[in-house]
Amino acid sequence: MTIAIHPVPGLPEVCPGDDLAGLIASALAAAGLGPEPGDVLVVTHKVVSKAEGAVVPLEGDEDAAYRRLAEEQSVEILRRRGDLIIARTRHGFICANAGVDRSNAAPGTAVLLPADPDRSAHGLRLALRHRTGVDVPVVITDTFGRAWRRGLVDVAIGISGLEAILDLRGTRDAGGRELKVTEVAVVDEIAAAADLAMGKAAGVPAALVRGLAVPLGEGRAADLVRPAGEDMFR
Amino acid sequence: MTIAIHPVPGLPEVCPGDDLAGLIASALAAAGLGPEPGDVLVVTHKVVSKAEGAVVPLEGDEDAAYRRLAEEQSVEILRRRGDLIIARTRHGFICANAGVDRSNAAPGTAVLLPADPDRSAHGLRLALRHRTGVDVPVVITDTFGRAWRRGLVDVAIGISGLEAILDLRGTRDAGGRELKVTEVAVVDEIAAAADLAMGKAAGVPAALVRGLAVPLGEGRAADLVRPAGEDMFR
Repeated sequence: MTIAIHPVPGLPEVCPGDDLAGLIASALAAAGLGPEPGDVLVVTHKVVSKAEGAVVPLEGDEDAAYRRLAEEQSVEILRRRGDLIIARTRHGFICANAGVDRSNAAPGTAVLLPADPDRSAHGLRLALRHRTGVDVPVVITDTFGRAWRRGLVDVAIGISGLEAILDLRGTRDAGGRELKVTEVAVVDEIAAAADLAMGKAAGVPAALVRGLAVPLGEGRAADLVRPAGEDMFR
Repeated sequence: MTIAIHPVPGLPEVCPGDDLAGLIASALAAAGLGPEPGDVLVVTHKVVSKAEGAVVPLEGDEDAAYRRLAEEQSVEILRRRGDLIIARTRHGFICANAGVDRSNAAPGTAVLLPADPDRSAHGLRLALRHRTGVDVPVVITDTFGRAWRRGLVDVAIGISGLEAILDLRGTRDAGGRELKVTEVAVVDEIAAAADLAMGKAAGVPAALVRGLAVPLGEGRAADLVRPAGEDMFR
């Protein structure tokens, strides 16, 4: 089935305390984008963090204040190179500068990750259902680097209404052989797909994905964090 | 702009020596999928490898033969756990079992990665242009695990007609601040997006992506391999 990824244009600059669900519902309606049952809403965490007030002023030497903030947001620092740290956040995510970001932030401020992105996704989903009457799963994204591969990709850091992992264990391939590749990080693929329609510079922080055949459920993006004991690359 | 990801149905089982471009052109035509200028074709490496004859019989104890083959295809073994090896291939990719795969392979055989996936992508692009009159960029994918995050995602292992990385250095965000997140692995995001439409078990090995606003170019998926000196996680 064909999948369509619609950018959601027209969202204003989001400020602490804003009703993000209301802003998104209005933008969807203005763009003629339903939502319809089966749609999935993808939102970059930046607007979620801003609406939740997870914005910190950088006082004095901004670069130094930013570095200090990134260290404060880190539970563990895995690697350090120049000003860059690769850190584990308290959510368990391993990413650059513990997810603290100054791009698309007001001058003199930095945006943190949401305190509990799965909970943020759930709240946004409930509020959108209340406003639109449609239960639309939500994926909150951030942009992460990877070991071994250059370039950044968007991944899911908070979800609601979907399983994080598509579990194909026991499924057979077209030839009847049991699949060995069995756990697909489907919400990370949704996050990456949505980024293609949003872009980093365009200031479009949301996309509606239509036509996905992925299992609904009550997964959490926290399920994507590989437990340290299973992780061969700490 | 809306992006549409169309699975390409109706491809037959591909065998060594098959004219893959011809099979894909026929399947696209039968599905009413142009191609049109601006489309990008995504193909799982499995059918490319099969057409190129990169298929190896597993003789004797199949499991042992498979493990031996994975080691033979490895330039360096980074980690080992039970039967699983995380290896660097001669292409530079770091992945499970050096990309050797038995799913969606004929019984008693394993499929290798293409010898030179960028070259394979280029050949497929030229052959498709010859057949259809349209120059469609090609992305060849495989399914890779990641450090730190559970689940697998599709990534680009060979490309033609696109840049591998969308370089946003010097670009400014909506507020006029220079972006710090500047190198987007856009072909990996395309690979992930296409997987959502293809699925692992459904036996649909190709998708046509329409509406992407990504820069054309003559990049290589080999450009995605992070040089060992820059890599903090070997």
